[in-house]
Amino acid sequence: MNNEALWGYKGEALQALKKANVEIGDIVRITKGDQTFEGILIPRSEYGDDRYVVIKMRTGYNVGVQITPTARIAKIGVGAKPSFQPPPLPKQKENLPRVTILSTGGTIASRVDYRTGGVRPALTANDLYSVVPELADTAVIDAEIVLSLFSENITPKHWTEIAKQVAKHVENGKQGIVVAHGTDTLGYTAAALSFALQNLPVPVVLVGSQRSADRPSSDAATNLLAAVQAVATAPFAEVVVGMHETVSDEAIVFHRGTKVRKCHTSRRDTFKSINALPIARLKDGKLSMLMDDYNRRDSKRKLVLKPDFDDKVALVKFYPGMNPKTLDWHLDNGYRGIVLEGTGLGHVGNHLHSAIEKAIKNDVVVAMASQCILGRVGMTVYDTGRDLLVMGVVPLEDMLAETALVKLMWIFGQTKNPDEAKKLLKTNIAHEYSPRTGYEEEKMA
Amino acid sequence: MNNEALWGYKGEALQALKKANVEIGDIVRITKGDQTFEGILIPRSEYGDDRYVVIKMRTGYNVGVQITPTARIAKIGVGAKPSFQPPPLPKQKENLPRVTILSTGGTIASRVDYRTGGVRPALTANDLYSVVPELADTAVIDAEIVLSLFSENITPKHWTEIAKQVAKHVENGKQGIVVAHGTDTLGYTAAALSFALQNLPVPVVLVGSQRSADRPSSDAATNLLAAVQAVATAPFAEVVVGMHETVSDEAIVFHRGTKVRKCHTSRRDTFKSINALPIARLKDGKLSMLMDDYNRRDSKRKLVLKPDFDDKVALVKFYPGMNPKTLDWHLDNGYRGIVLEGTGLGHVGNHLHSAIEKAIKNDVVVAMASQCILGRVGMTVYDTGRDLLVMGVVPLEDMLAETALVKLMWIFGQTKNPDEAKKLLKTNIAHEYSPRTGYEEEKMA
Repeated sequence: MNNEALWGYKGEALQALKKANVEIGDIVRITKGDQTFEGILIPRSEYGDDRYVVIKMRTGYNVGVQITPTARIAKIGVGAKPSFQPPPLPKQKENLPRVTILSTGGTIASRVDYRTGGVRPALTANDLYSVVPELADTAVIDAEIVLSLFSENITPKHWTEIAKQVAKHVENGKQGIVVAHGTDTLGYTAAALSFALQNLPVPVVLVGSQRSADRPSSDAATNLLAAVQAVATAPFAEVVVGMHETVSDEAIVFHRGTKVRKCHTSRRDTFKSINALPIARLKDGKLSMLMDDYNRRDSKRKLVLKPDFDDKVALVKFYPGMNPKTLDWHLDNGYRGIVLEGTGLGHVGNHLHSAIEKAIKNDVVVAMASQCILGRVGMTVYDTGRDLLVMGVVPLEDMLAETALVKLMWIFGQTKNPDEAKKLLKTNIAHEYSPRTGYEEEKMA
Repeated sequence: MNNEALWGYKGEALQALKKANVEIGDIVRITKGDQTFEGILIPRSEYGDDRYVVIKMRTGYNVGVQITPTARIAKIGVGAKPSFQPPPLPKQKENLPRVTILSTGGTIASRVDYRTGGVRPALTANDLYSVVPELADTAVIDAEIVLSLFSENITPKHWTEIAKQVAKHVENGKQGIVVAHGTDTLGYTAAALSFALQNLPVPVVLVGSQRSADRPSSDAATNLLAAVQAVATAPFAEVVVGMHETVSDEAIVFHRGTKVRKCHTSRRDTFKSINALPIARLKDGKLSMLMDDYNRRDSKRKLVLKPDFDDKVALVKFYPGMNPKTLDWHLDNGYRGIVLEGTGLGHVGNHLHSAIEKAIKNDVVVAMASQCILGRVGMTVYDTGRDLLVMGVVPLEDMLAETALVKLMWIFGQTKNPDEAKKLLKTNIAHEYSPRTGYEEEKMA
């Protein structure tokens, strides 16, 4: 683990700071040639570049300073030391639903030290619980750390790990599972769990926060409390994402794991259901379902765990002037599947067509979503779409490109046969396709 | 040009159809081994795959049949022949503003033959004009075909061509220029013209349609008429996109060329201003400005044409499990710039950091937008963002990733110097950055 006094520092930077005998919170001066930087030494996350030291200057700006061999660090003042001590745990009531909170990292599992401005991940689920004492009135909570990662660093092998941990707790008879996760790739992980955890007896709610717990505008407590209440009491048994419906704290909505996308860099209502409605809303302490077509909670149902993913699948967004060789590269590097984000109804420039055809002839599964995001691909309207269908491109209807990527990675975790893969890709497994009226299909022979 | 009787067919398919003595509209039977397909032979676009013949079957489905050496084609009935004759031109009133409609292709410049279901592009601007006789009451119109392409086939070299044609007509003293364009990549071309046509004296309105002119729900006539009215009378002199504000025909809004995105595969209000308001609205025949901060029409101003683009710039959308070698590939293939669509506030997985650093050290300009689409990147909040800033990644604030791609292509059309390129990238040239209150910046040293 990290040294508390120099939290997050490693390698060259850690050595230099130790040598200078400074600690986080100290006021330091760094001299490099004719440049001088003065400010408070702030902590780094576990994932910072080893060579940089970050200080908060008097202007309020943070500056990263690379520690070169000639750089000199001097302590010029003693600052306040950061403190991340959680308050004591509230007294747990028994006879409440038993739920598990699995922590994977991210803002919801982070705290900011205000004197230094450092954001620190890796708060334990137990810490979260103690920070939101109302949880003790809602459920009996087990807390476990699965990962401690900013979500941009979560990869398909982590999805496998999270799915297995969720399955373990479901099989232990929990009333539901909350997964605390960074918001950046929360949508991708939600899709992954939707495919990996089939036939769920209880709800799995992924939850994040856009503002960390120490900020007055934080959504961490409201979101976490809502997630716990949902897994403890909701009638659905699906993988969903629970986040703010609007910028106010009034309502939390639950989006299907395969239909949800992060749509704003900073707003608390960043997650939106795309081409679908959210399935439930929690408002004034009451959870209401927003549709009839959902999988019901049933404690006797037996979970089917399919946690494997194959990362030889790519998401490629088309743009004018794109080089067809970028597609060839994926073929040459052993990719089994490519999800294209085409334009409009599902098109790409015709200069890419022969590269696509070549990939398909070499057993790569190529599928088409739209970079429009909203709406359904319709590849029968124009010749461009028809030609792509003829080649064997799989139209993804109204599925999100991100969900399609995850689904194809999951499919190749189940089979390496491209024909079986195409069949699975077209099968609606976790509500990733929404029904449409007057569904039309154009066949190609 | 194409043979009217076998419109759009080329190569092997054309030979086979000629040999069978069939024409578009005929009822044909194609036999391949033990498979038989019967239906009406329909036209293809100019961009179809040479080897396929498309027929509309009795079920209403279109089927593409590959013409193999053993395939047999027989005429089994004579169908109605398609007709694309435009009505006669209305009488032009003089003493009206003189405007130009430049046609580049797409649905707005296409017609469907209902008996066969074929969509045919390459209707001339003159045809458009004759289809919407009200245009004759609004302006004196010159019409010119620049291109005849589905917009997914438009590349940076076409942007140059379009920009030069617009400039020519602006310099000829026109009151404004309408560019009719397919909707798929309309946003990209709008951004391209925004950078290429500087110091405009008059408005340039790009216009498309989501439903072709022969359909009752078509938006082609309303959009075109609004575009002509805007270029003839509007007080602004910028590059904008004019399309339906909602699904009703009530209002047309004009979006800045650098802030607009196609957001729905099929709706008529598919174009939205992102992180900005539309600049004007046309409703009940009246155009109103929606903001004060816009470039005014001034016929004495001298257009500055900068039409060059360099396509050695890539748009790369990050996803979990992405292989850092995809970034190396761009470096190895002479790319000068990469626009990353990161997650959230502008992050990518840390396993990509060394590939990014390597690219930057080799003079590739790497910039960061967010796949959230809405909101502003904020790379100073977490260590991930700070590390990327330290490496020299350029944060793109609230700029659309697509606009950033086009801008960087345009920048490398002006200079090959990476430092000058970075400086231009950070400069607000065509309202691609929106102002924010309390703008913060973190410097890295």
